[in-house]
Formats: sequence, structure tokens, C-alpha cells
Amino acid sequence: MIAKLLLDRKREGGTLSTEEIEGFIAGFTQGEIPDYQMAAMAMAICCRGMDVRETADLTRAMQNSGRTLEWDVPTADKHSTGGVGDKLSLIIQPLAASCGVFVPSLTGRGLGLTGGTADKLESIPGYSCSLSLEKFQAVVKSAGVSMAVQTDEITPADKKLYALRDVTGTVASIPLIVGSILSKKLAEGSDTLVFDVKTGIGAFMKTEAEAVELATALVNGARANGRKAAALVTDMNEPLGRAVGNANEVAEAIAILKGELELPIVPLCVEFAALMVALEKGMALDEARELCRTNLKNGAAYAKFAAMVEAQGGSLEAFAQKLEEPVFRFTLQAPKSGYVGNIDAHLVAKVAFQLGAGRAQAGDRIDDLAGVTLAVGRGDKVAMGSPLATISSSRTPDLLERNAGELLAAFSIVSEKPEAKELIVWRSSM
Amino acid sequence: MIAKLLLDRKREGGTLSTEEIEGFIAGFTQGEIPDYQMAAMAMAICCRGMDVRETADLTRAMQNSGRTLEWDVPTADKHSTGGVGDKLSLIIQPLAASCGVFVPSLTGRGLGLTGGTADKLESIPGYSCSLSLEKFQAVVKSAGVSMAVQTDEITPADKKLYALRDVTGTVASIPLIVGSILSKKLAEGSDTLVFDVKTGIGAFMKTEAEAVELATALVNGARANGRKAAALVTDMNEPLGRAVGNANEVAEAIAILKGELELPIVPLCVEFAALMVALEKGMALDEARELCRTNLKNGAAYAKFAAMVEAQGGSLEAFAQKLEEPVFRFTLQAPKSGYVGNIDAHLVAKVAFQLGAGRAQAGDRIDDLAGVTLAVGRGDKVAMGSPLATISSSRTPDLLERNAGELLAAFSIVSEKPEAKELIVWRSSM
Repeated sequence: MIAKLLLDRKREGGTLSTEEIEGFIAGFTQGEIPDYQMAAMAMAICCRGMDVRETADLTRAMQNSGRTLEWDVPTADKHSTGGVGDKLSLIIQPLAASCGVFVPSLTGRGLGLTGGTADKLESIPGYSCSLSLEKFQAVVKSAGVSMAVQTDEITPADKKLYALRDVTGTVASIPLIVGSILSKKLAEGSDTLVFDVKTGIGAFMKTEAEAVELATALVNGARANGRKAAALVTDMNEPLGRAVGNANEVAEAIAILKGELELPIVPLCVEFAALMVALEKGMALDEARELCRTNLKNGAAYAKFAAMVEAQGGSLEAFAQKLEEPVFRFTLQAPKSGYVGNIDAHLVAKVAFQLGAGRAQAGDRIDDLAGVTLAVGRGDKVAMGSPLATISSSRTPDLLERNAGELLAAFSIVSEKPEAKELIVWRSSM
Repeated sequence: MIAKLLLDRKREGGTLSTEEIEGFIAGFTQGEIPDYQMAAMAMAICCRGMDVRETADLTRAMQNSGRTLEWDVPTADKHSTGGVGDKLSLIIQPLAASCGVFVPSLTGRGLGLTGGTADKLESIPGYSCSLSLEKFQAVVKSAGVSMAVQTDEITPADKKLYALRDVTGTVASIPLIVGSILSKKLAEGSDTLVFDVKTGIGAFMKTEAEAVELATALVNGARANGRKAAALVTDMNEPLGRAVGNANEVAEAIAILKGELELPIVPLCVEFAALMVALEKGMALDEARELCRTNLKNGAAYAKFAAMVEAQGGSLEAFAQKLEEPVFRFTLQAPKSGYVGNIDAHLVAKVAFQLGAGRAQAGDRIDDLAGVTLAVGRGDKVAMGSPLATISSSRTPDLLERNAGELLAAFSIVSEKPEAKELIVWRSSM
């Protein structure tokens, strides 16, 4: 295989064969294909695209650059492209597990405005997301669900390629995004994969059309590699739930898992878990939804979550105490009476980040107790002076003052009750 | 300047500012922009293009990566994209110099099927193309013309970028080709630049449309950088003249410069030299043509050539003796009677290369005396058994046998006299 000829072909919009893609990715992983050739190929893929077969081949080639897990039990996982207040995984994964599928969920740490699922979970004292793959497999088998960070053994090609894409302007490409997301999910070994592709001002995919394109490509790529798959495109213009941060998001997820909190995101969590269960167990979707709703009420979902936390070293008692620790807080008041209209997810995330809830660079420390907790949601009636949100920081009170004004701009207060928004914007076939 | 943002913009088909292009090229030359970012940028330029202003900026940025020569005399140079039997520079540059313009002509060594102008000239015993820029300037001033190889001081950015493009599938891009060709010509300092863009099976640009696009871009780029410029697109389906090799091409050029040989390429040489003279001296083109024809007849053009050879250490007496040295030769005979139709330039070049007239890798030694000398041209009447061409090698007679059959396939012998071909396919404005 001569890399240069493949570069010529892709530059001209041609297609690469399965063997060519495998050779290119293997060569890159082993250092035989230098960064500058991979960078040129990534740019050519950005500009010329890849068809469904090529994308599936790229994904599998990246998967095969490292270890692949295998399971002798029914498995399902959900992936999200990430949003503001997106603690949905904390709810969906144990909920699906409570319905009899095993959920091996490898995830990344957060970069950008908000923490990732692993960061949120590690606000639970003692909880570790850094497991060996053997330990990860053992937790899945014993607790029914494990959420941990992928190790270096999983898709080294992705790690290397992602770092290169980040500095060569080649992040924005559907085939490359699919390759990155899906290769890790294939390596994790789940038989069923459900994708949550978010769209809107708080999401990576700003337009619905882009989100549908990515969702379709993820489902196609997963199916072409022998997995059951479905995707929902969901609205990410307003924060998901009330909490945006780390510990406060875990607390909100626990309340939902215990059936104690009803929010618009609860039916969305049920929908995702039901898709996982229906696809993996061959159950009717309606029946799966009903089972999920029951397991939120009867404590079965929470029991799975608690089992996972315990198996990974965490203490929910210590977590409850941590939430009582003194922190700096400020409660924002409504400047006028009316109804809550749009709440700008991007601005809320920015404020949470500035308070210390995210990291600007890999390795930065997160303030677990920093964040924004909304007191209201879209359509709620508010009186002048009534609370809109509480912001918190365990570092310094100055941060509160600097961010309160910015957060206020995230709220629109309108005179007529706004229509409720549908969170599910598009759905794939099953 | 953040390289990544420029890569994002070019990937999406946007334009880069003058300062951004200058910064990117300067950063790449100094090693601050790594190869992988330059490779991604080159691929983005291949896929998305550059407008006239960006191309001119790229060219100037590359020019300014090294030394630029300045002249206090009228100067003109001709550049060719390269062809089979393309000894035109050897004729045109002294011819233009004989009409009162100074011709500083920096050139490259050949890679690919045939030697470059420098390789041909160095078949003259003692002639050196490796001059310091000071010596080069002195020869131009004293002899009126110098043909030498560009030193490392000239456009180091081009040298570095060309090596990278060669291994990243980013050679085929009009703005990058213009940047490479034109930056060197700008650095050389000629006030007038005339371009010969060849098209056909023996050329880099296979189609006329591509050749016209490149010719237009070269003229635009030169004019945007304050030079006078014109271009001709010329046919490169049949070898130029009768000799394809090195020493035999120089011998043919000398015969033409002495006015001893009339071939279809002679009017083409006159046209290029006349364009140089007309543009630089503000003379009418007809008048310049007439002056060139006169200087071929009266020995003035040859005198300039002889002066340059002497100034660069060569001996035309020793060259004449060298042509008499014993070499292995084989004369190919016409397999039937008729008229000579097409002669496949690419096949002829391939045979010359196989005989030892070109180099596969930089540093390979060329066999000066190897090559193909045609005995006939398009439209000539041949009898069965009469000579079509002589092939020669100073290395081994085996080479002759292996190549004779292949060369025969380059000739078509037809029953009716074929029409003469127009060598000039397209011409730019002046």
C-alpha cells in the first residue's frame, strides 16, 4: 500500500477499499504512516467524505487498533454527543440494567464547558472511573452496570488520531466523528448501541440537519459492524434538568432514580433505556417503556446505581454528607414577574465552567461543588424577586458576583406561558 | 495567528488574508508550524482552492522565505512546465538575450522521465549549473544570459513544501503549483516572465482545460506581484524537435542557434523569445519576432549561448569531441512504407529514461550520451526499412535491444499524409 496513492485518490473524491483503510490506520497506529500523511488524509476525508462502507471500515480499523471486549450476556450501551446538564447516562444506564441487560459503559473525561460523565461520578467520594478492563468486566457482571474511563488499551488509533485532528482543523467531519465515537463503543463490545445526538446552541451539532446526518451515520456504522442500533436526535437549546455542574447533577440523577423527581427529562431517559432494552431483548418498545417506568418507581433502577457505586469504591452516605458541606452560594432573583421562556443552555454552561465545574485543559482540577442549579424550568410562573437559580463555588465568593449577571442574561421572562418543547426532534428506525 | 482556525476556515472553503498566508508560510519555514499542519493546509487548498489574491499572496510569501535578486538592467525569463525533448530554453534564453534583454534563468534538475535544462547543459564538459548567486549575477551581466540551478538561499519554503506535497498527495493543485513555480521566478527577480504550459500525453497537464487554468493562474500571479507576464499553452503530444536525451538535445539546440536547422519548434522558440523582448522592451510583437529571426541567422543568438557556456566553465570544443565518442547505437527501421503520423511523446520519453537519460531519484547519475534521436518527424514520407530513429547508450548494448521494440510502438505509419499540427494551442493576453 502506497499512502501517497490513497491520498491522491481521496483528494479526487474516490473511495478506499477495506484493505486500504485497514492498512492506513494500522500503519498510522504503528508509526509507519507519519502524522503529516494522516493529517492530509483527515483533511481529504473532511473535504471529500466517506461512504457508508468506508466509514464502517474506518471504524472497525480503529477498533482493531486495540483490545476488544467480549460478553456472554446481553449487553447494551447508550452514547451521547454531550450537552448541558447531561446527566442522562447516570439515569439511563442503571435503568436499562434494572430491566435485565448488562451495561458496559466506557466514557471519556470532559473537556470544554462541562465535566463528562466520569467527572460527575467521581464527585461521589471514593468512586473510581479508572478501572482495569478486568475490573470493569467484573463490575458489569456483578452489578449489571459499570461506568468507567476507557483505558489506553482501547482504540489507541483513536487517541492518536483525535490529538492530530484537534490541531489540524479536521474535527468537523462526519466519518471521522463516527470513527472516533463508534470505534470505542465497538471495542467495549456492547451488542446494542443507542445514540443520543444533541442539537442546538448547547450542542456540538448546531443544526438539526447536521445532527440527523451524524445520527444516521452512527446507526449505519454500528449496523454495518453487526450491532443492533438506534438513535434519537434531541433538543439541546435548554439545560437538561435543573442541575448543571457535577455533584449537583449526581444528586438530581439520584432523585430521579429513586422516583422522587419528575422533570421533562424523565420520559426522555425512559425512552433511551427502553430502546436499549427493546433492541437487546427483542421486546416491544411499549412494553420496555412500561418496565422502565415501573423500575424507576419500585427502586430497582436506583438499586443498580447503588450497586455500581459500591462496586467501584464509592460511598453514597459520604456523598450525601458532601452535599451538606458549606460552599459559597448566591441565589438569583427574577427581575420581573411573568413566565420562564427560553433558558440559554450555552450561557448556563459557560457560567458553570467559569465557576469551576469544567476544565480548560486535560489535567485541570474540577470543583465538584461548583455549578448552577435552576429553581425553575421553561413555562414556570415567577414573581419579581422569586428565585431563578442558585450558583455555587467551593473556591471563592468573588466568582459568584462575577457570574450572577451573566447567568441572568440566560433567562427570558415572558408575559405569556410559552409552549412546552418536544425534546425528541428525530428518531431513527429500530 | 492560530493555525487551527485557518485550517478550519480553508476546510470550509473560506479565504485567508494576506497576513494569515504570510504568517502560515513564515511559521512553516521556521519550523513553528509543524509538517502535519502544513500537510492538512495543502490538502485543504487542493480541495477548496485559492482565489487570485490568495494565490499571489502565497507566492510572495514563499518568495520572501529566502533571498530575492534585484537587477538594474531590463530582465526577462521563460519558464516551461516541462516536456519531452524540451530543449527550448537552450534556444530561447540566448535568443532573447541577443535582442537586448538580460536573462537570469534559475532552473531545477530533472526528476521523472527526462533530464532538466541543467542536466542537459551539464553534458557540456566543464559547464557548471551550480553557481553562487553572486557568480550567477555576474554571468548575467557579462554574458547577457545565465542558466543555473537555484541555490538553497532561494525560496527555502518551496523546497520544504514541495518535499511534503510529494508525499501527501497534494501535488495536483493549481494554487500550490503556481506558488512553487512562480515564487522561484519572483525571487530570481526577472521583470518579465513568459510561461510555456504544455498539454498532452507528454506533459504534466494532460488536458487543455487544465493547462489553460494553470497558464492563466501563472500570469495572474506574476502580474499581481508587479511583473509583466504572458503565457502560451503548447502541444506536448509529440516530442519537441528530433532529439530526446541530454547531449543530443544540446547538439540540436546549437544547430538551431546557428541557424543550421529548420524544425517546427523554431517558430515556437521565436515566439517565446519575441514575447520576452516585446513585453520587456515595449516593442511591437511583430518587430520582436523579426529581430529574433534575424539573430538566429546572423549568429547573434549563438554568440550569447557561447558566451554563457564559456562564463560557466564549459567548452564547446570538448562537447563537439564528446559527441564523437563511441557509444552503443541502434537504428530503428520503418516496418512499412507510408507517412509518419503521431509519435507518442510519452513512450519516447520512457525509452529515453530506460536508456539512462533521466533519473529515478535525486542523485542518480545520468548517461549524457543516452537517448533517442528521431530521423523523421510528423508528415515525413518513409519507405519500408528506412530509418525512424537512433537510440544510444554509453553503458551496455543490452539496453538497446530491450528498448527498440518499445520505441517502435511510439510511431504510427499511416497511408495518407497527416495534417501539420499547430504547436500553440492557446495564448494569454499580453
